[in-house]
Amino acid sequence: MKVVALAGGFGGARFARALAESDAELTVIGNVGDDAEILGLHISPDLDSILYSLAGLGDEERGWGRAGETWNALDTVSTLGGETWFQLGDRDLGLHLLRTQALREGESLSSITTRFARAFGIGVVVLPATDDELRTHVETPAGEFTFQDWYVGRRHEDEVTAVSYEGDAEAAPGVLEAIEEADLIAIAPSNPFLSIGPILAVGGIRTAIESRRVPSVAVSPLIGGRTVKGPADRMLERFAGGTSPAHVGGVYEGLIDRLVVDEADSGAGDHIVTRTLMSDEAARRTLAEAILEAAAVAR
Amino acid sequence: MKVVALAGGFGGARFARALAESDAELTVIGNVGDDAEILGLHISPDLDSILYSLAGLGDEERGWGRAGETWNALDTVSTLGGETWFQLGDRDLGLHLLRTQALREGESLSSITTRFARAFGIGVVVLPATDDELRTHVETPAGEFTFQDWYVGRRHEDEVTAVSYEGDAEAAPGVLEAIEEADLIAIAPSNPFLSIGPILAVGGIRTAIESRRVPSVAVSPLIGGRTVKGPADRMLERFAGGTSPAHVGGVYEGLIDRLVVDEADSGAGDHIVTRTLMSDEAARRTLAEAILEAAAVAR
Repeated sequence: MKVVALAGGFGGARFARALAESDAELTVIGNVGDDAEILGLHISPDLDSILYSLAGLGDEERGWGRAGETWNALDTVSTLGGETWFQLGDRDLGLHLLRTQALREGESLSSITTRFARAFGIGVVVLPATDDELRTHVETPAGEFTFQDWYVGRRHEDEVTAVSYEGDAEAAPGVLEAIEEADLIAIAPSNPFLSIGPILAVGGIRTAIESRRVPSVAVSPLIGGRTVKGPADRMLERFAGGTSPAHVGGVYEGLIDRLVVDEADSGAGDHIVTRTLMSDEAARRTLAEAILEAAAVAR
Repeated sequence: MKVVALAGGFGGARFARALAESDAELTVIGNVGDDAEILGLHISPDLDSILYSLAGLGDEERGWGRAGETWNALDTVSTLGGETWFQLGDRDLGLHLLRTQALREGESLSSITTRFARAFGIGVVVLPATDDELRTHVETPAGEFTFQDWYVGRRHEDEVTAVSYEGDAEAAPGVLEAIEEADLIAIAPSNPFLSIGPILAVGGIRTAIESRRVPSVAVSPLIGGRTVKGPADRMLERFAGGTSPAHVGGVYEGLIDRLVVDEADSGAGDHIVTRTLMSDEAARRTLAEAILEAAAVAR
C-alpha cells in the first residue's frame, strides 16, 4: 500500500518512523517552513528530524538532534563570541555543512535529501514539500518573528496571534506525483499550523489532497486535549476555538476523511481511536496499524 | 622590545608561543598561502595553528589542530559521502564556521583574526600577512597542485620542483607598520619556501624587511640537516643546493643578519647556536632568549 505522510517536527519524525516500520510503501513529505540560516549554514530541522528518526539516529529523549551528540564546535563558537542560541551538535553539523555546500553549488534540497536518506540507509522516500524558499512567520503581541527566532530564540513563549507562510513555493519534484499515486494520505500528529500548514501552503499540495480519490486521515497531535510537546493546544484553542477532536478535525476540513485520536480523547464523533503516543516500537506499531486499517474504512 | 615574527606551519606556531612567553612585545605575521576552502568553509591552517598554540589549545603531540578534539562532524560527512581528506575536528570547526560567516559578511581576515585572538585571551598581536587571496602552488612530477591538495591530499609525497604564489596580495593593515616599528625581526623555523615564502611574496613585506634598520634573524628549520616535520630538507637540497646553515642562510639573503642554528648544526659560519627544538616550555625559553639576545649583536 502506497502511503504519503505529511510530517513536521517531533511528532512528524516519530510518525514517519512508525509508518516506515510497517509494510507501507512510504513517501514522507517534510515541512521546510522552519528552515533557517544559522552560522552561515542552511538548517532544515524538520527534514533532519525525519531523517534521523528513520535512520534510528535521533535522540529519543531530547526529541531532536542526534543521539550520542557532542557540542564541541558550538563550544568554540561560544568562546569566540558567536551565536549559540540555536543548538547545533557536532554530528548534526556534518550534515549541515554538506547540505549547505551542495545548495550553494546548485543542487536542489529534494535531491540532497534523497541522497542523504540513501546514505543513511533509509528505505523510504523523504522529500521536502518544496525546493523553493518557504518561511513560516508568527505574529505575537511582542512582534512578528521567523519561526526559529520565536520557537528557539524566544522559547515559543509569546502567544501566537497569526501564522503566515512567506514565499511563492512550488511542490518539489515527486511530491504531487506521490500524492496522486497514493493509496492513503496520512497527516502526522504535528502542529497543524506550524508543521502541516506550511506543507499545505506549497502550490498544488492542498488541491492535490482535496481532489484525492483515496482515503486521507490525520492523527491528532493532542492527547487528552493537550500537546505532547510544543504549543499546538494553545494554538488550536485560539485558531480553532478549542481542543476537542471536532476542533482538530475542523482544521483539516476537506483534507481528511477521518481523524485518528488518542483513547483519552475518544467520545462524540466518528473518529478512529487508538493509542497515539509513540513511546516505543510497540506503540509505533499500534498507531501504524490503525492508520493502515483506515485505508479500508475511511471513505 | 618590539619583535615581529614571520611564522607559518608547525614550527611557526611553536615559535610564536616561545616568543609570546618572553618579555617581547610581539606581533606575529602568519602565512595564508596554505588557506583553502574545505566543505564550503574558509580554512586558514597556519593562522589557526598560531592561535591555538598561543592560546595553549593546540594538540602538541599531533602538531596541528586542537587538543581534546573530537571528529563527529567529519564522521557524519563520511557517512553522507562527503570529502574527508582534510581533517576538520569539531572544536576547530566552530572557528571555521564563524570566520567563514564573517568573511562572507565582508569582515577582513585580519579583523577576524584580531577578534579571535582577543577572544582566546591571546595577549600578542596576530596578523595574516594579507587580507587578499594568496595561494601557494607547487609543481611536482605528477602535476601542479594547490598547497593543501599536495600537502594533505597527496601527503606531500611528490617531489616539489617549483613553488609559486598566486594572487596580487597587499599587506594586511598593521603588517608593514609592525615591521617598521620593530626592534627585531625574527623568522620562525618554518619551511622557507612553503611557509615564509608566501609571506615575503606579499607586496611590500620583502622590501620593508630588506630596508630595515634593526637586526633580523631566522631560525633554521633543520636540526642536523634534517627537518623536524615536513619536506623542508628535501626542498632546501633542491632549491638551495644543500642543507647546511650556509644553504639555509642563503635563502634569506638580504633579509636576515644572522641565522640561528641548532647545536647539531654548529660549525663553520657566524651563526647563533642554541637548541632550536621547542619540545617544552624550558626549550621554548632557551630559544626565545637566544633570539632576543640576537637583537643586541646581530647587526
